[in-house]
Order: sequence, then C-alpha cells, then structure tokens
Amino acid sequence: MASESPSNWQDLVAIKRHECEQKIPSDWRLSADQLAFAQESPRLLDIDLPRRSGLLSEIELDITENYTASQLLVKLASGQTSSLAVTTAFCKRAAIAQQVISCLTETFFPQALERAKYLDEYLQREGKPIGPLHGLPISLKDSFCVEGVQTTIGFVAFLENEPAKKNSGLVSMLLELGAVLYVKTNIPQTMMTADSENNIFGRTLNPHNTILGAGGSSGGEGALVAFRGSVLGVGTDIAGSIRIPALCCGVYGFKPTNDRIPFGGQVSGAVKGIPGLSPAAGPLAHSIADLKLLMSSVVADGQAWKYDFSAVGVPWQAVPSGINASGSLTIGVLAEDKYFLLHPPVKRALERAVEALKRAGHRIIRLGGEDEAQSLAYASRLAFQYFTYGPQKAIIEASGEPKITSLAKNASPMGSGPPIAQQGLGPFESILALHEARLRIHEAWRQTWVDQKLDVVLAPGAQSTAVAHDMYGWPSYTVLWNVLDYPACIIPYGKASKELDPEPMKTADDAQPDYRPDEVDGAPCAIQVVTPRFQDEKCLWAADIIDRALAVYGKE
Amino acid sequence: MASESPSNWQDLVAIKRHECEQKIPSDWRLSADQLAFAQESPRLLDIDLPRRSGLLSEIELDITENYTASQLLVKLASGQTSSLAVTTAFCKRAAIAQQVISCLTETFFPQALERAKYLDEYLQREGKPIGPLHGLPISLKDSFCVEGVQTTIGFVAFLENEPAKKNSGLVSMLLELGAVLYVKTNIPQTMMTADSENNIFGRTLNPHNTILGAGGSSGGEGALVAFRGSVLGVGTDIAGSIRIPALCCGVYGFKPTNDRIPFGGQVSGAVKGIPGLSPAAGPLAHSIADLKLLMSSVVADGQAWKYDFSAVGVPWQAVPSGINASGSLTIGVLAEDKYFLLHPPVKRALERAVEALKRAGHRIIRLGGEDEAQSLAYASRLAFQYFTYGPQKAIIEASGEPKITSLAKNASPMGSGPPIAQQGLGPFESILALHEARLRIHEAWRQTWVDQKLDVVLAPGAQSTAVAHDMYGWPSYTVLWNVLDYPACIIPYGKASKELDPEPMKTADDAQPDYRPDEVDGAPCAIQVVTPRFQDEKCLWAADIIDRALAVYGKE
Repeated sequence: MASESPSNWQDLVAIKRHECEQKIPSDWRLSADQLAFAQESPRLLDIDLPRRSGLLSEIELDITENYTASQLLVKLASGQTSSLAVTTAFCKRAAIAQQVISCLTETFFPQALERAKYLDEYLQREGKPIGPLHGLPISLKDSFCVEGVQTTIGFVAFLENEPAKKNSGLVSMLLELGAVLYVKTNIPQTMMTADSENNIFGRTLNPHNTILGAGGSSGGEGALVAFRGSVLGVGTDIAGSIRIPALCCGVYGFKPTNDRIPFGGQVSGAVKGIPGLSPAAGPLAHSIADLKLLMSSVVADGQAWKYDFSAVGVPWQAVPSGINASGSLTIGVLAEDKYFLLHPPVKRALERAVEALKRAGHRIIRLGGEDEAQSLAYASRLAFQYFTYGPQKAIIEASGEPKITSLAKNASPMGSGPPIAQQGLGPFESILALHEARLRIHEAWRQTWVDQKLDVVLAPGAQSTAVAHDMYGWPSYTVLWNVLDYPACIIPYGKASKELDPEPMKTADDAQPDYRPDEVDGAPCAIQVVTPRFQDEKCLWAADIIDRALAVYGKE
Repeated sequence: MASESPSNWQDLVAIKRHECEQKIPSDWRLSADQLAFAQESPRLLDIDLPRRSGLLSEIELDITENYTASQLLVKLASGQTSSLAVTTAFCKRAAIAQQVISCLTETFFPQALERAKYLDEYLQREGKPIGPLHGLPISLKDSFCVEGVQTTIGFVAFLENEPAKKNSGLVSMLLELGAVLYVKTNIPQTMMTADSENNIFGRTLNPHNTILGAGGSSGGEGALVAFRGSVLGVGTDIAGSIRIPALCCGVYGFKPTNDRIPFGGQVSGAVKGIPGLSPAAGPLAHSIADLKLLMSSVVADGQAWKYDFSAVGVPWQAVPSGINASGSLTIGVLAEDKYFLLHPPVKRALERAVEALKRAGHRIIRLGGEDEAQSLAYASRLAFQYFTYGPQKAIIEASGEPKITSLAKNASPMGSGPPIAQQGLGPFESILALHEARLRIHEAWRQTWVDQKLDVVLAPGAQSTAVAHDMYGWPSYTVLWNVLDYPACIIPYGKASKELDPEPMKTADDAQPDYRPDEVDGAPCAIQVVTPRFQDEKCLWAADIIDRALAVYGKE
C-alpha cells in the first residue's frame, strides 16, 4: 500500500485541508462574491461580514456581539437562551472567521451542538445548570487535546498522530464545569514565533487589518475572539503567546502564574525537563470579568490537581490578599528599554493611561535606572539562551516541510549585550550561569517591588502594535514576565493613528519591527498590568480598576 | 603572617571549637561529675540533667517542660511571663544539651537576652505584642544565616566565611514576627546523610539513647527539641532531613510543600540550577499545634515573597479547602516496599495506628499492587540519581578534612532495580529520562489519590527507628514525598520494645539498617501523614485529627 500513500508533505497537507474544509457545513459557507469582497477589504471588522453574509440571524448576531461570557452564563442558567442557540451562533461565526482569517485548526461543530442539546435537556430536567460554565462555548488553542480530535500543532509530521485518546486536564475540567467545546485555533509552526502560520493550516490574519499579523503563538485565539467567533478562549504563553495575540487583535488576555490553570496533557514539540521558562495556560476574552470568570471557575477551591498533577492546588481568592481596600493603587511604570524602543502609538497609549490613572487618584512611580538585572534586555538574552535548548528542528525536518518565514528569521535579542551564559561552557556550567542570572532578575524585581511598595507594574505589552506579517520580532516586553513567572494582563487601549504619529521610526536591528504609520494606522494599542508571582487575583483586581479608570478618565 | 596561620584543618577546628565553648557562660556549665554521669547514662532524658544540674530554677524547668510554643505565646502576650524569663530558660537548657549531645553549632545567647529585654520593654510600653511570635525563642538549623553569626554548615573550608552580613529571608520574617533567635543547630557534613556529624561541631547524639543517631540532616534540631532546649525549631528537608530527626528523636516534624516557607538566603554546598529535588524549610516541635503555629505565622496572608523571592505568595488557609466537615478521613495506608522492609517496631506502630483510626471511625484503604512508578524503590532510585549531580566533594577536599563515616558509606538504593536514567547517557538525555520518570510518579500518585478518593496517606516515616550511629542508610520512606513535593508530617507514636519484638531482622543489603532489638529498645516510633502538593493546611488538619484519635483509641 506504500505506493498509494501520499509521497510528499504537500499531499498530506492537501488531504488534511480538504478534510477540515468539509467539516464546515455548506450552508455556513460564504459565497464567492462575499469571499472576494472580503479579500479586497483588509479591515475585515469594518465590513461586518457576519451580518453582511446573511448566515447569522438577528438573534445570533446579538448573542455573539452584545454580551460577555459572564452575561451569557446568566442568560443560559436562567433559561433566557439555550446552549443550542448560543453554540450555534458561535459555531457559525467561527466558521465565517475561518473562511477569511484562517484562525481555526480543528472544528467539531456536530459534537458541540450535540453537547449543547444535552446541556439544555439537563437544565430542563434538573432545574439547575450542570456547572458554573453551563452551556458556554469556549475555544481552545490547538495544543490542547480533545478526545477524538487530532492534535498536530501545525507540524506536518504530526499529521500521523491518531485522534487524541484523552482530554488534556483542563479540557476535562471545562467539560465538567459545563462548557461546550467547538473549535481549536491556529498557531505558528513550533509555537515559538508571533506569526501564527504553519504549513498545514496556513496563516492567521488579523481581522482589524489582514495585512497585519494576528500575533502568536495563540494567534488563532486572538483573531477568533476579536472576530467574536468566540467569547472566551484559552491560549498558552511562554514568552507572550497569550498576550501578543491579545494586544495585536485588541482583546483582553491574561497570562497567569504557571500551573494555576492546568497545563498538562497538551501536545508539544518542546524538549522537556531542561531548566528554562515554563508555559502557562490562560484566557483571552472581551473583558476583565471574563478573564476572571475562567480563572475563578477553573482554579476554584484548588482541586485542579485532580485533573493534572502539575496544577497548583491553591484556591482562588475571591478577595485578593495584600490589597488596599480603598482601591487606590501604587503603580510602577516600566521604563522604555533603550534596546527595545517603543513605537510612537505604543508610547502614546501608555502615557495617556498614566495621565488617566493619575487623574483617577492612583500613585504613579516611574521605574528606571535600576541595575541591569532588571532590564528587558537582560531578561531577553536569558530567555533566548534558554530557548536554544528547545529547537524542534527534527520534527520539521521529519516531514520535509520548510520552516515558516518568521521562524527562519530567528529574531534574536543577543545584540543587546553579552550572552548570559558564555559560549563554550559545558551544559551544566551553562545551566548554572542561566540559573544564577535568573535569580538576579528575581531578586532585583523583588527589591524594587518592596522598596517602592508597588501594587502593580504598568508596562507596554510590546514595542509595537500588530505589524506586517513576519515582522513582529523578539517579544521583549512580554518575555520579561515569563522569566519572572509573574502574572500579566493585557488591556486593549486606544488605536494607532498616522495622524497623531506621522513620523516613521526605524529600529536599530532587524529583530525588531520599524514603525510604519500608514501600515499600522488603526491597529489596536494596549497596556500590560503585572503583579508578582501567585498574585493572579490581585493582578486581575487591579487590571479591573485600571480598565474602569481608563474608561472614565482616559477617553481619546 | 602565613606562618602564623594554623597549618592544618585540625588547628582551624580547634580554634573554632574553643570559641564556641567560650560562648557558654561558665555558670551554665555542667560540673565534671555531672558530665561523667551523663556519659555513663545513654538514656539521657531519663536522668533529667536539667533538673539534676541545678542550673535551671523551678520556674525555668516549668517553662521549658510544660508548655507548647502556642501556650507560651499566650503567657508572653498577656505578661504572665516575660521573654527574658522564657529566653533565659531555653538558653540555659540548650547550653546543657550542647554539653552532652553536641546539638548546637553557633550560640548567641547575649544577643538573644538583649532582644528579649527589648521585647519585654516594647510590650510594657505599647501594651501589645510586636507580632504573633512575640518573645518566643526559636532555634534554627545551621544553614540559615543570622546577621553577625557565621554559617559554616560544618565544612572546615567554610571556617573562612565572614559572619553573615544579611539574614536569610525566613530569619528576617521570624524577627519581624517577634521571635527571639538564640542558637543554630548541628547538621551532617554536606547535609546529605542522616547522621548529624561533621568535623567542626562533632556528632549530635540522640538524647533518648546516645548510642543511637539523632537523625539528619536537621539532627541538631531534633535532638535539641527532644531535650526541650527548644520548643520550636526550623529545619530543612530534601530527602527527609526534617522528618528523620523528628522520628529518631520522638518529636513532631513537618516538611511543607517547597517554598511555602521562605527557603532562600541559606548557605549550601549544593550545585544550583540543575533539575532535581528541591529542599523545603519547615518546623520541628512538640505538637501539631506548634507546627501549625510556625506555618500559619510565616505563610499568613502570603507576603513571604517580600522577604524571599522564591517563596510562594499564597495565603495560609485557616479552613483548608477540600476537607470533609465531619472530620471523617479516607486514609490510604502505604504498603511496605519489598526492597525496604519495615523493622518490627515500625510495623507494629503503623498497624496499631491503623486499628486505632478504624476504631475512631475513619475509612482505611490499603494501597499496594500499584504500578512500579508508585513504589518507594522507583522514587528512591530516581532521587539517588538526581543527587549524584550534587556532590560537594570539592568543598570537603579544599580543607583536607576527611569525609564523615556515614557520607563515605554512600548508602544507595540502586540495588532495588535498574537505574532510571541509563548509564552512559549524555547530560540532557539523562535529565530528560529522570524528568519523565518523575512525571510518571506524579501521575501514578495523582491517579491513586483520585481513584481512591483519599484525604491522606498514612505511612511509616522510615524502615527503622533511630539506629546505631552511621547505620541509618537510605531514606526511602521520606524521600518519596520529596520526589512528589507532597507535604508530610511526622507524628511520634509509641516506642520500640525488645519484649514485644524480640526477633532481630537482617536486611538484604548494607544500605539498610538491621533490626537489633536490644540496641533500639525504647527508641521512639512514628507515623507519617501525607497529602498532595500545596495541601499543607489539610495535611496538618488531618495530622491533628489522627494525633487526637491515637491519643484516645491508640494507647499502648
């Protein structure tokens, strides 16, 4: 039979793509005209395809556009709407998104609709919801395993993988909590770039502007949530992979402390057990309330370890410890790093936020002049050296597929200073040098936090907004917090404007994007709110206060 | 001046010993007769040296013998007694202990008495205690740094170390909470054996019977607490180093989940940053209440990270999550490992506890027949291979001092099966193999816990009781829980008896002690109570229930 097998990777991909396309019901497909119009309209959100397509009813448009997940849950639990109605609406809208921005990998709409019906019947029969997420559709990054669904994470070599035999721990939990799972979302080859492209599922486009990247590695999530094809999604983040798509796509994203959300049972090509950064799973959504919803439902009273031994068995604090009851915050503002200069719209958004927070009565402390160990550049070089342990080259080479462009570019921060572990050290000496550097960073930040009595740090999420495909570069402003394992929340705030910031800016090296006013005009801007390790509750509590303050005092 | 420097390690040690001896006030010294009598009386606790010596007043005997730390704190806060009185009593009693069982390294009695006076004045002036540990003397394992005091951890080469310039994070916290620090306690060379002997401070003897080891590596703590020269001490545990001295010396000991008690800022000779087991700091005391006291005071509302960035910023749960309000427990009883057979007194104590717990209405589930990954032998071999990364040979060799006997013996569990990481693997392959084995162990135990709906596991603390010096061997029954990072509590329970268990038992290999009925007759026995990671609160809650049930239903 070997002769009947596809002979090259392109054939394997063609088969898989055909299978995936067949899973989109024919009456959820855009017409050729609609597709053509979408292709001519880079600002996809502006042309409102879901309405224009006629594929969603008024009720379905309402469901997908006008509620947070928390609000939908109230309607679901009270029977004001059904899970079947909500699930159908999001399945349709996700299907439309997929046809124009390639944000999905696997879809399992029939199973989702079946489950929705089951949950509706349960509510009817039992008179109460099955759990706190009763009937709510939740989207998942491709790396999570859902029983019966394949997990390829975009590696052609993984097209050989059998459908998952077991749910990831988080997936089991979400189902027990009452969620409906319906799609998995696109990622970059290796999940180690900010361009969500791979040779199986193609490239996810940014629905704000398809000439821009959607960010990564949870780029499918960011784009799908921005398109409102999902109201709540779960991504993972080892260097910014939740926060980058959130800030590129103008949605909220939260990277928790590692292992507060069960991470285990995902497919990965990473080398395991070597010291380095660890990834965290966390939510993307349209509000802080929905980020909290996911965190508090899953963490709850600390039983996640029953589903995944790597999960930290610590309860969610309804009232975070260490908060000031007045709600007045001491906010440290991260200084711009001289090696990673901020694009004008990013700087403008940050400064506008600072002014608004001052007006709202919060205390602002400008950080800076700290020792080198506190800098983005130092943490970046450390992270980069840790990441060199994890090349997934062999998996790519196994199928003969090429590297994607952004991976081949291999954006590096090593131009910002000497390597943390010198070249030529033996493996243990090298691990020791990196470990000691990491301790220095931890100690420097602890000291700053204590000396300045900080509640949170306010920082940019990135040097730039979303930029042209394959230009995002090294994620300095996100990876620092992975080095520290600090929780960090992206709040979308403002838009890039070529009128306000007309001057282009060239960066010093080719691992960083230039600022091109015309290209990014209208792209979402964002800020990042950070707290020390395990203060996830306080991070979201403060992010909520900041988000509200910006709405009142920080309008453009 | 080099010619005036001591020329060999013995001279350096002689100088240090002389300095240490001079720090014991002359009127706290035992007479030659008393010392001679003590030497002829291996069962030191029976001859009641503190009373016999006449060095302690009746009040001081009362203070040191009849209260838990929690009870002393009530008396201190209410002014019924003064910190000066309590501190003087424990300083004297610790000084006596030191003269007969070599349980101390550094003493700083004058500073302790100064601080006690300061605290007494504070209480007088302010009308309230300075913190929850106001006025309470607490002893510390030598590895902790106290400003102005040397930390040598028993390495002759470290006699060159300057006195500590900075407190360990925990030490700063204890002082802020109101504690009085007065002594540091003895450990084994390298802190990696269960015999607390080194070439500077000598060998700690077991006050129950000086022909027996005190356990290690926090052996000085175990012996000092058993002698009631301390009411509450802090040790550290990477393979059993809190629990082994606790069970050898008949006191309570608790190894928390790593980093719940700040561990940072200690002196260590260990290689850092290499994957492997991590040590935890935790209390030794005379009651579960006092173990809880230390844990809840230090963890409190999760601010320990401010003193030590490695501390987990998670609050102490006054009411543990995941508990059954009825107080009825489902208790899994760890099976005896065929490679690490239990000595008859240990088995007898465990079975008696099981019967008592049944009578008290708890549900007992016999574990066993699980897959290999759940066995002590498997975890032991994994731990042993991890520990090979951490030889501290170079530090020993630097001074020319010899290895202590127990270290030179290098008790190994590798006879129990094939190595976990095969010989000859490269460093990364070896790390990966060990990592994967560790994940297997985690998953096997998670599955058991969930399938059996366990609240706790009840286990022996060791194969044996305290045994003759240098015979303790490999710590299989403790190290398993370090591999898993599960909290584990030692409850002293019963005594070895040559009448009840007259038959000697030879073990299969020389890394394990034989049972010698005459030698260990009267030695304390113990049980171990274990919960999953981060369930420290539940572990102590259940240990308390079990301890009370044994007092009612499990009397000998």
